[in-house]
Amino acid sequence: MLAGGGAVRKNAEDVLLERLLKLVPLPEKGLLGPGDDCAAIPCGGDLLLLKTDCVAEGVHFTRDQDPSKVGWKALCRPLSDLAAMGGVPGEALITFFSPPDIGSEFWVAFYRGIGRAARKFGVTVAGGEMSRQPAGIAVSVMVTGRVSRRDMVKRSGASSGDFIFVTGRLGGAGGRHHLNFIPRLKEGRWIAMHRYATAMMDLSDGLGADLPRLARASACGFEIDKDSVPRRRGCDVRSALSDGEDYELLFTCSPKKAERLNAEWKQAFPKTLLTRIGRMTHARNLPSGWPGGWDHFSDSH
Amino acid sequence: MLAGGGAVRKNAEDVLLERLLKLVPLPEKGLLGPGDDCAAIPCGGDLLLLKTDCVAEGVHFTRDQDPSKVGWKALCRPLSDLAAMGGVPGEALITFFSPPDIGSEFWVAFYRGIGRAARKFGVTVAGGEMSRQPAGIAVSVMVTGRVSRRDMVKRSGASSGDFIFVTGRLGGAGGRHHLNFIPRLKEGRWIAMHRYATAMMDLSDGLGADLPRLARASACGFEIDKDSVPRRRGCDVRSALSDGEDYELLFTCSPKKAERLNAEWKQAFPKTLLTRIGRMTHARNLPSGWPGGWDHFSDSH
Repeated sequence: MLAGGGAVRKNAEDVLLERLLKLVPLPEKGLLGPGDDCAAIPCGGDLLLLKTDCVAEGVHFTRDQDPSKVGWKALCRPLSDLAAMGGVPGEALITFFSPPDIGSEFWVAFYRGIGRAARKFGVTVAGGEMSRQPAGIAVSVMVTGRVSRRDMVKRSGASSGDFIFVTGRLGGAGGRHHLNFIPRLKEGRWIAMHRYATAMMDLSDGLGADLPRLARASACGFEIDKDSVPRRRGCDVRSALSDGEDYELLFTCSPKKAERLNAEWKQAFPKTLLTRIGRMTHARNLPSGWPGGWDHFSDSH
Repeated sequence: MLAGGGAVRKNAEDVLLERLLKLVPLPEKGLLGPGDDCAAIPCGGDLLLLKTDCVAEGVHFTRDQDPSKVGWKALCRPLSDLAAMGGVPGEALITFFSPPDIGSEFWVAFYRGIGRAARKFGVTVAGGEMSRQPAGIAVSVMVTGRVSRRDMVKRSGASSGDFIFVTGRLGGAGGRHHLNFIPRLKEGRWIAMHRYATAMMDLSDGLGADLPRLARASACGFEIDKDSVPRRRGCDVRSALSDGEDYELLFTCSPKKAERLNAEWKQAFPKTLLTRIGRMTHARNLPSGWPGGWDHFSDSH
């Protein structure tokens, strides 16, 4: 059994982000800003979710990979964040930085992948920007999503005692999964509309980095039965907790609802694993031995 | 007198963009998508404007420049696009790509500049993302803005005979202006709410590249009295048409309203030049000798 908590666990990326956010005006209390999977702003009677995510050469993909799959991934990454808040996707805006040794054929293939994902998940491309840069390919994708105030699920709603669930299997996404994954939009929407989740987020940096973020947002700790963590074939527990790029949903559910959740999930998503891996706690100490996930800025301090 | 038209004038960036946009689903007719300064989506009874823009090292700034000024510029660039549609700024989402040789001090200074601009122009930072990349600093900034359907000004509304106006002075922005400019939010809002503009856009790639875009969107041509183009000190006409990064407003106005526009402008903005530089025409031929503006992709085809 591994137990961990939010208070003491921040990676270098989170520390830098906190420092930067003190320098800028943030949205009013009550609106969601930095720290959740998406920002949420009032739009008519509902909420408009806004999320920006990115892919960079050498970090999220390499040049020998199929550009159309990189395009698929670039759009699906922020869609995975919309999924975690129960949102329905709307528009995408795409900004790309192109080095001198990359020609228009790369971008044509890349946009084919964007188009494939956009058609599958009901997204329209409403704008964008392109620029040269000296070296390396980088792309930022912003997506909008719609959700009612009643349906939206935040990271911050978990209570001590809530059960922790994950969809699918974790670890080993560096193989092919990270270029082919299906964002859990249907599942996230279903969880939100049936009010099963007290808190939810998507797993992009690995359970080891992301679960402490959910716990911190909810002012809780957590206990995990490490042997229960569902693993992709060939992965050990450490890999399942640390690899990142799972794009699965992590959520908490009141124990009262857990039995019904399990039963109805099997009806709704018979091919998708749903696993209870632990529970939220009062205690907020992180034990030594808790593995981190992916940390973009671990060497910058 | 220089005359030009939209039909024949597309730079390499526009050609690539057109090719890419055929590969992806676009917003329904009636909603604004790629091609105008901002996308516009319904939000309650009004419209929400969405705009993404970017700065890249070696293209929009160099490493010896003050990072806080680069931050100012990064936020003010998309605000200039909001200005051109009559929008009131709302939220910003910031994605940055950081090379290994750049530490957190750069980003702290950069965010100070973002914060300074955000406070001045009423923007809150609602989210973002950070990633490593192998080389070079790049930042994408997405902003939202609000505007009523009645007030919004598009690029496509100009008619033959409309007078062409620009704010401020053009050319030579590479000196200091490009890091210090004030986006014309007040002026753009004033023009929109007083219904002076039939079409409007902001000048970021230079009049030589941007006026043909407005003309093409409006299915018109144009004539310019080149000697009337207001120039920054030390700039010749070619420089005023080609340098780019002016961040001034370019708009068209019905001749009937032009006299009142001039009189009321002097009352509202006594310190800001407003100059009539030509008129929209039926003819859509671009003469040889029409200078292009900045073209990010001129060497990629």
